[in-house]
Amino acid sequence: MNTEFLKVAHAAREAAAELAPLPRAPKDRALRAVADALVAHAAEIVEANAADVEQARAQGTAEAMIDRLRLDEGRVAAIAEAVRQVADLPDPVGEVMRGSTLPNGLELRQLRVPLGVIGIIYEGRPNVTVDAAALCLKSGNAVLLRGSSSAYSSNTALVKVMQEALADTEVPSGAVQLVPGLTRDSVKTLMRARGLVDVLIPRGGASLINSVVEESSVPVIETGTGNCHVYVDAGADLDLAVEILVNAKAQRPSVCNAAETFLVHADAADAFVPRALEALKAAGVTVHGDARVARYGDDVVPATEDDFTAEYLSLDIAAAVVDSLEDAVAHIRRYGSGHTDAIVTRSQQAARRFVSLVDSAAVAVNASTRFTDGGEFGFGAEIGISTQKLHARGPMGLPELTSTKWVYTGEGQLRTAEGTVIAKSGQ
Amino acid sequence: MNTEFLKVAHAAREAAAELAPLPRAPKDRALRAVADALVAHAAEIVEANAADVEQARAQGTAEAMIDRLRLDEGRVAAIAEAVRQVADLPDPVGEVMRGSTLPNGLELRQLRVPLGVIGIIYEGRPNVTVDAAALCLKSGNAVLLRGSSSAYSSNTALVKVMQEALADTEVPSGAVQLVPGLTRDSVKTLMRARGLVDVLIPRGGASLINSVVEESSVPVIETGTGNCHVYVDAGADLDLAVEILVNAKAQRPSVCNAAETFLVHADAADAFVPRALEALKAAGVTVHGDARVARYGDDVVPATEDDFTAEYLSLDIAAAVVDSLEDAVAHIRRYGSGHTDAIVTRSQQAARRFVSLVDSAAVAVNASTRFTDGGEFGFGAEIGISTQKLHARGPMGLPELTSTKWVYTGEGQLRTAEGTVIAKSGQ
Repeated sequence: MNTEFLKVAHAAREAAAELAPLPRAPKDRALRAVADALVAHAAEIVEANAADVEQARAQGTAEAMIDRLRLDEGRVAAIAEAVRQVADLPDPVGEVMRGSTLPNGLELRQLRVPLGVIGIIYEGRPNVTVDAAALCLKSGNAVLLRGSSSAYSSNTALVKVMQEALADTEVPSGAVQLVPGLTRDSVKTLMRARGLVDVLIPRGGASLINSVVEESSVPVIETGTGNCHVYVDAGADLDLAVEILVNAKAQRPSVCNAAETFLVHADAADAFVPRALEALKAAGVTVHGDARVARYGDDVVPATEDDFTAEYLSLDIAAAVVDSLEDAVAHIRRYGSGHTDAIVTRSQQAARRFVSLVDSAAVAVNASTRFTDGGEFGFGAEIGISTQKLHARGPMGLPELTSTKWVYTGEGQLRTAEGTVIAKSGQ
Repeated sequence: MNTEFLKVAHAAREAAAELAPLPRAPKDRALRAVADALVAHAAEIVEANAADVEQARAQGTAEAMIDRLRLDEGRVAAIAEAVRQVADLPDPVGEVMRGSTLPNGLELRQLRVPLGVIGIIYEGRPNVTVDAAALCLKSGNAVLLRGSSSAYSSNTALVKVMQEALADTEVPSGAVQLVPGLTRDSVKTLMRARGLVDVLIPRGGASLINSVVEESSVPVIETGTGNCHVYVDAGADLDLAVEILVNAKAQRPSVCNAAETFLVHADAADAFVPRALEALKAAGVTVHGDARVARYGDDVVPATEDDFTAEYLSLDIAAAVVDSLEDAVAHIRRYGSGHTDAIVTRSQQAARRFVSLVDSAAVAVNASTRFTDGGEFGFGAEIGISTQKLHARGPMGLPELTSTKWVYTGEGQLRTAEGTVIAKSGQ
């Protein structure tokens, strides 16, 4: 493993050990110091960012991408404000999850503890550098940040400002580290750093996430691919169904909780599909439908298998008519990404059945898929949305960045084949 | 991927979808049917086992290993009884973990749901085949079993009996599957079956677990390596300390929660080490000590780095004198496996500090390390002891074999940039 990476990873590991036992107050003070420093050093951050923007422009990067990359003093202030909001959140560390006094007198408690060192692999936006660092610090973790090489100058400046701010606090400045190097090699090194890094969280497109999952020996939390469905049941309130569908698709099409496919029960198709096509068209959405959907409109583009698998993240939606709720569930199981799937129905029984059969991180009943979100769920902040089943599923807030530790306290309990005996004390 | 494996894995996946929504009663009925069938078919199970035993003997396998492998009608009855005990345990599926009504009226709940398909890779004992299957079924999961090739005939018979018993119940018989094939290839296939298998739990020695962790693209829960420490603090009650140490080491040395190293504060060494050496010698234990321990006894074998890393699982223990509680913690961080570490102390402050600084699945205060166990913790059953930080840490019972699902129910909630609005209903 390359020496520069090892140096950074060991520094993070040492910092993690120092940070883990800290109570809330010093962590909050450190986060506020970071926020103040970001504001105070906004000019140099914006200057560093300008270099990234200039390079992106020289490489012919699309203007939308450049906008995601760009920082100005207002954006830096907003990033600092988000850090203050994290400081205001409750500290998950030390929470007693379970506990009891065992029959043998041992007092047993299960406590939340930090995970240790968290690696974050992410794309474009430099605000993630600060957001992720703040969430990791608040939950008592050190963080290794590996952002996009297109934001390297911005990220370097942001991490420098954070480290300098931490140097005057009880939180060790080594707890925030930028992974050195710009090449794919630095990602690979991070993925093989089992024992040094406790968990990797890739944030970005499906190909980034898949490659991390395939290659990493460090445990991974998958985030974010969302092929979300809206299923309109037979007998659904169609006004409600149209509004939910349009909201789920078009309110913000670029996010993972936006709908990418709608399914409609055959009994509702005649009444629903023409209205859905009209409303979606009015919202600028192109519908990629199967043959049974295509009957209802000339603008429907014939759907292929790829359309049903696609996470468009654009004003496109796939559509199909299904013969039953069970067929809708089968379609979702086959093509879905296990993020969020919604049913619109008047039937309590159908809602219950859909919730029970759909195996996704979130299931919505008579509501837009757009609510699967840490902020909407009241978490106060979110590091990503997990679409895997281990450890965390759905929006991840601060508690999802922790592990647990069992503590048992006794007075000389010994285990024997016949049960517990208490050791004789010398007192 | 080989066709035979794919057939079995797809069957498990389909069964998992069918099994997941089942409530407790049919699962318990199915488990009792399995228990009855094991007893009814004990003779054929014992006969199949005899073939494995004969082969092991022909290969010159050690008698202790053969004893672990051997089944008789009494042992089969005990295995069946353990299945009945799993049926008596509460069902974790459907438990509401968190929930609230959000400010916008959405009713939000987080429910426990099955993981899906669980792969178990394990060694020797054929009773694990049934234990693991029972725990997986009870928690609503299908299971792919990959036991030791030395128990293949036994495992084949056990799985056949279980599948036939399930065929007459509401639990699909495909929910219990033996991974076909005896070679290492079948393990490799299982480890690359991402998307078909939701989690892999390797149970066995460190080398098995490490190879699974390194090679698997399926998420893994590491279990079991235990390099547990007993630290005797300055001013500890030495009678208590000697008894706890001897119990932790010698009561059952072959298990993962047995102590493998003791550390003693320099201030307590003169008084403690001679007594510890005497008591350990009386219990048949060989002490591998550093130079500061060796001063106190002629029988002390000089310890190498390997001794401090070793999981002996035998009547051997490593030992060192440390200058402070912090040095003890540093030793544990460096050499420990993050399983269970104990402190013997009279000081409340020292106990608090040790608990806070030691980063292990369990920390014991004035108690033997031997209590880190699902049975002792009151879980009723245990699939293994996780030494990783993600998902589950420490003894894993039924809840650790589940994931969660968010469900939110509304009346047409739509998300807008200005907050939630409610869709107009057609009614």
